[in-house]
Amino acid sequence: MTKDVVVEHGESSKAPLVAAAGVGRAVSFADIFLRFLAIIGTIGSAISMGTTNETLPFFTQFIQFEAKYSDLPSFTFFVAANAVVCTYLVLSIPLSIVHIIRPRARYSRLILIFLDASMLTLLTAGASAAAAIVYLAHKGNVRANWFSICQQFDSFCERISGSLIGSFAAMVLLIVLIFLSAFALARRH
Amino acid sequence: MTKDVVVEHGESSKAPLVAAAGVGRAVSFADIFLRFLAIIGTIGSAISMGTTNETLPFFTQFIQFEAKYSDLPSFTFFVAANAVVCTYLVLSIPLSIVHIIRPRARYSRLILIFLDASMLTLLTAGASAAAAIVYLAHKGNVRANWFSICQQFDSFCERISGSLIGSFAAMVLLIVLIFLSAFALARRH
Repeated sequence: MTKDVVVEHGESSKAPLVAAAGVGRAVSFADIFLRFLAIIGTIGSAISMGTTNETLPFFTQFIQFEAKYSDLPSFTFFVAANAVVCTYLVLSIPLSIVHIIRPRARYSRLILIFLDASMLTLLTAGASAAAAIVYLAHKGNVRANWFSICQQFDSFCERISGSLIGSFAAMVLLIVLIFLSAFALARRH
Repeated sequence: MTKDVVVEHGESSKAPLVAAAGVGRAVSFADIFLRFLAIIGTIGSAISMGTTNETLPFFTQFIQFEAKYSDLPSFTFFVAANAVVCTYLVLSIPLSIVHIIRPRARYSRLILIFLDASMLTLLTAGASAAAAIVYLAHKGNVRANWFSICQQFDSFCERISGSLIGSFAAMVLLIVLIFLSAFALARRH
């Protein structure tokens, strides 16, 4: 027996070890698949918000009525958060591939859980700030004297509402990713 | 040797097992301490936002100028999210106490990681939506024709800004809690 081989259950052969490795590998495959889905969600959100631009067909002598995402700081933050999380997810895929090769890795999974949780927080912050402003754009607020802008900028509002979906889907996927990494750590006997 | 006792390293005695249990116990104590801090943060945020109320010293015949948190849906969500997370944290403390007694528990830690991640998302969503509206209350937005309300409601604005701090601190604590639980899982040989 070499030093690397660890006997886990006193009474067992290598069978549970191999089974644990199999589960770890399956989890790593699921991990990569979910990361791809989350990449699609965040990149879709960033692009659809980032390219939103509506110019109204009427204008006065001085002002052309135009709405774009960068008019509202929350939307800029939303695009930035989605771009950062998307970049992180792309960079984390090599680590997931390492986990397929070495399914019993511990500390790399630990780092992944920490980074996933941080990115989940960033993405949620961006999506939620944007959602608060989208809600305000739709409904306005009588008490604060903020009027709805969605009557004028109809397609702008549809677009910004739709762009939230990808982010919220990616948030759910990130929670599942954290759970999967933790599950792989728990299963590793 | 009973069925419960598991020999971990083929060549080792029970020493690493005991050491792992010690680390697990230390992590559980830190876990409870951080949960208490997070409870204080969320309850402080919920109360300080929930009791915010400013009536201006002047009024017309028909309108008395008054601002309270329930005028803005994002603030109501903020209070609700903080209350839910605070309740969850209180309820999760017994589970952390179980982890002191049984430091090598696996699946209860896994459940805790999942619930902590979900609560982190809820809390971040509430805090971030409120922050987006607080920002708007301070700065307003020229493009959307939304005016700052902080010139009039000065102490209201100070209060709602301050109430965010507890939530953001609790967010950081929850990320650390997720990491600690994952660390305990990784250390458990």
